[in-house]
Amino acid sequence: MANAVIWRADTILTDARTTLRDAEVITQDGVIQEVRSRTAAGHDTVRDLGNAILMPGLVNVHTHLDYTAMRGAVEDVSFFPWIRELTSRSALLTPDDWLASAVWGAAECAAGGITTIGDCTPTGNAAEAAALLGLGGVIYQELFGIDPAGQSRDIAMQELEEKLARLRRLTRGTGLHIGISPHSPYTVRNELLRATARYANRHTLPLCIHAAESLPECQLIRTGQGEIADSLRRRGINWKPSGETTVQYLDDCGLLGKRTLLVHGVQVAAADLTIAQRSGLAWAHCPRSNAKLGNGVAPLMLLGPRIGLGTDSAVSSNTLDMFEEMRFAVYMQRASRRQIEVVSANQAVGWATEGGATALGINGRTGTLRPGSSADICAVSLNSLTCQPAYDACSALVYACSARDVVVTVSGGRVIYDTSLASDAMDRFPEIDLRSWARSLEAAASRIKQWKRAE
Amino acid sequence: MANAVIWRADTILTDARTTLRDAEVITQDGVIQEVRSRTAAGHDTVRDLGNAILMPGLVNVHTHLDYTAMRGAVEDVSFFPWIRELTSRSALLTPDDWLASAVWGAAECAAGGITTIGDCTPTGNAAEAAALLGLGGVIYQELFGIDPAGQSRDIAMQELEEKLARLRRLTRGTGLHIGISPHSPYTVRNELLRATARYANRHTLPLCIHAAESLPECQLIRTGQGEIADSLRRRGINWKPSGETTVQYLDDCGLLGKRTLLVHGVQVAAADLTIAQRSGLAWAHCPRSNAKLGNGVAPLMLLGPRIGLGTDSAVSSNTLDMFEEMRFAVYMQRASRRQIEVVSANQAVGWATEGGATALGINGRTGTLRPGSSADICAVSLNSLTCQPAYDACSALVYACSARDVVVTVSGGRVIYDTSLASDAMDRFPEIDLRSWARSLEAAASRIKQWKRAE
Repeated sequence: MANAVIWRADTILTDARTTLRDAEVITQDGVIQEVRSRTAAGHDTVRDLGNAILMPGLVNVHTHLDYTAMRGAVEDVSFFPWIRELTSRSALLTPDDWLASAVWGAAECAAGGITTIGDCTPTGNAAEAAALLGLGGVIYQELFGIDPAGQSRDIAMQELEEKLARLRRLTRGTGLHIGISPHSPYTVRNELLRATARYANRHTLPLCIHAAESLPECQLIRTGQGEIADSLRRRGINWKPSGETTVQYLDDCGLLGKRTLLVHGVQVAAADLTIAQRSGLAWAHCPRSNAKLGNGVAPLMLLGPRIGLGTDSAVSSNTLDMFEEMRFAVYMQRASRRQIEVVSANQAVGWATEGGATALGINGRTGTLRPGSSADICAVSLNSLTCQPAYDACSALVYACSARDVVVTVSGGRVIYDTSLASDAMDRFPEIDLRSWARSLEAAASRIKQWKRAE
Repeated sequence: MANAVIWRADTILTDARTTLRDAEVITQDGVIQEVRSRTAAGHDTVRDLGNAILMPGLVNVHTHLDYTAMRGAVEDVSFFPWIRELTSRSALLTPDDWLASAVWGAAECAAGGITTIGDCTPTGNAAEAAALLGLGGVIYQELFGIDPAGQSRDIAMQELEEKLARLRRLTRGTGLHIGISPHSPYTVRNELLRATARYANRHTLPLCIHAAESLPECQLIRTGQGEIADSLRRRGINWKPSGETTVQYLDDCGLLGKRTLLVHGVQVAAADLTIAQRSGLAWAHCPRSNAKLGNGVAPLMLLGPRIGLGTDSAVSSNTLDMFEEMRFAVYMQRASRRQIEVVSANQAVGWATEGGATALGINGRTGTLRPGSSADICAVSLNSLTCQPAYDACSALVYACSARDVVVTVSGGRVIYDTSLASDAMDRFPEIDLRSWARSLEAAASRIKQWKRAE
């Protein structure tokens, strides 16, 4: 078999429920060809990772790679001032800064075993960065526009089309798909939400929106009151409250369907869950972001079967570590419901792999090590002090491992991160020179530091 | 200055509120001599850690080093069956297994920047292991005895005295102090709790007890009902309920005072907080353990000023990573109270350093980099991909760093972990050969695997 590789490790997890020993995975032409018992195959094509878990590449369903340079720049302030400060600081970034920021985020993903992302990008840089690092998934073009006195609907939709055309160019020939993300119900006005939903439907494009995240958001939609409503009023924008929950409101706008990903879903009522399930939408669960920003804990076990896990941006949760995200997903559910049985380590691994692929509408193509899937693989070493001893693969992955334990990441058959290349993480990316990007990131950070709070 | 070392790093955190740049720390004879602006001192005595945060060694106020070999052995079962299964599995361990288990835990602490522990040990091995690795802190001799038909009080107290004498021998000439830990109100009967309290008072020894951790525990004390009560009844032990909360009950037993550390404090009422504050006791907060075991979230902001952070054992929280414990402490408080302002990164760093030292009754001796304190120091690199960029030291430590970022740990002036020694973590402990302990750990794990559930 030309260009075939035989991947071995002491443990192989083909999906969250299936653990194999003495097995091997054959990849060829970017695809998983076979998972079989170990053979006596020739050494030149074998890569044996030893005391490690070989598993599907992780699926991070909610990232904003663009914002990586602002990791830790806005801390310990409440949700709405936080989002305003990060927007204000980001205005200082140059085009080069934005790209360096997105590349750094994509590199962090690759180094942490992530092969597939669902990214919301205002600038399009996430698409360029993900393509450069070899990540697959869905890049959602992010859209803003709350002010009725701003850009007209037609101009806004025309601009969206141009941005989508750019995303299409940037993702051609990659494992990336494109989609649309009207940012949220409090930053995109009703008319634009409806126009976006119609456009996405017409072009069979996936949709993504931040929804039911914070209390001020829900207050705005339902009553037209609260912190966000006050801020809009100061800008001369009068919000007409619908008396609805966020989910009801988005349903009215035509945004909810099988190709829709709702991000967060912390503030949801029983009626919302019925609507959500009927529409067939998927949820992106970001427990660390929700906790750190004081928004609470999503009622995960009620959200239905289509759930993926997301780290959110480095400004929210600071690291794009899906192992920690799995761990916190379990911890948060158990702490808030005071029950252990409510969620297991296996379920968390499922959300971070096949569940995420389903949430992004690309299951079957990635998220498992089944023959025919894209060769999206990561290997997680159990050699760290904190991973020994290990009794069960999913327990080790969820409760003990870290993104730091990833030793190899393969996306679409390409090795995109490999610890065997160098002892310094900077030199472990076969296709990019991360050291030069580090200098650009530093330049971006120095601009972000220059921000001054308006008096 | 003979044997003086000059420690430098780009950032020096002398305590949670004080960040210095262009500074250096001078240690000599195991003590911090001076913190000063950088000088032109000779290179032979300088250790410059570059892009790192030099800070007080972390204080992990609640560990059970003995149980490290059972990391991940008992997963996804509820609290009381969990504690029974781990006790049952631990019965398979040989004396050599116990020591290897404790040494592994002590090594994990050292590698994660921890210089000081509060450990509860049934076997005494934690004392030997902590001494071997050079950790300081308090080793509490753990005590069990719920069955009135078991060992008489006099015999139990005599056995305790013998065990304390052994701990005294093991800790002689080290930075370790000894204390007593009656395990919990549901595993030590009233009479023994009272006898232990009197003994500790007479000998001015610190006390530690697991308290107000789970709902079944509180149910037992208050009503004599629930899962733990049922289990005791099956063993022929009839519990006389006091109608009190755990804190009230322990107060009646004479256990609460300035030298007492209450571990957990999840299930506490307003009246308990008044008692706790009046008594001057300290709390060990273990948010990951409490979450993972489905016990809930301690009302941390109400517990008063004497709070330290603990990882609990590797059987509960799987890793002895104090960075993740800080992060999770912040996340859990914010998620459960739906507020960001309730706790900051700086506060979390305070709990993990000076707060912990105060909780263990050894503040002034460790927990800050002030002159006269023990030279207990760790250095945390910011070179990891996930730590860049960094805008603020406490934000980076709490929200982005991991135990994996620690590059050097110094305890009482001794370098106990040093990444400059080797690329493999196994070879970074100047005073022990961790590879041989790894083999013993593996042997212990193989015995733990042999456990069979009783039909």
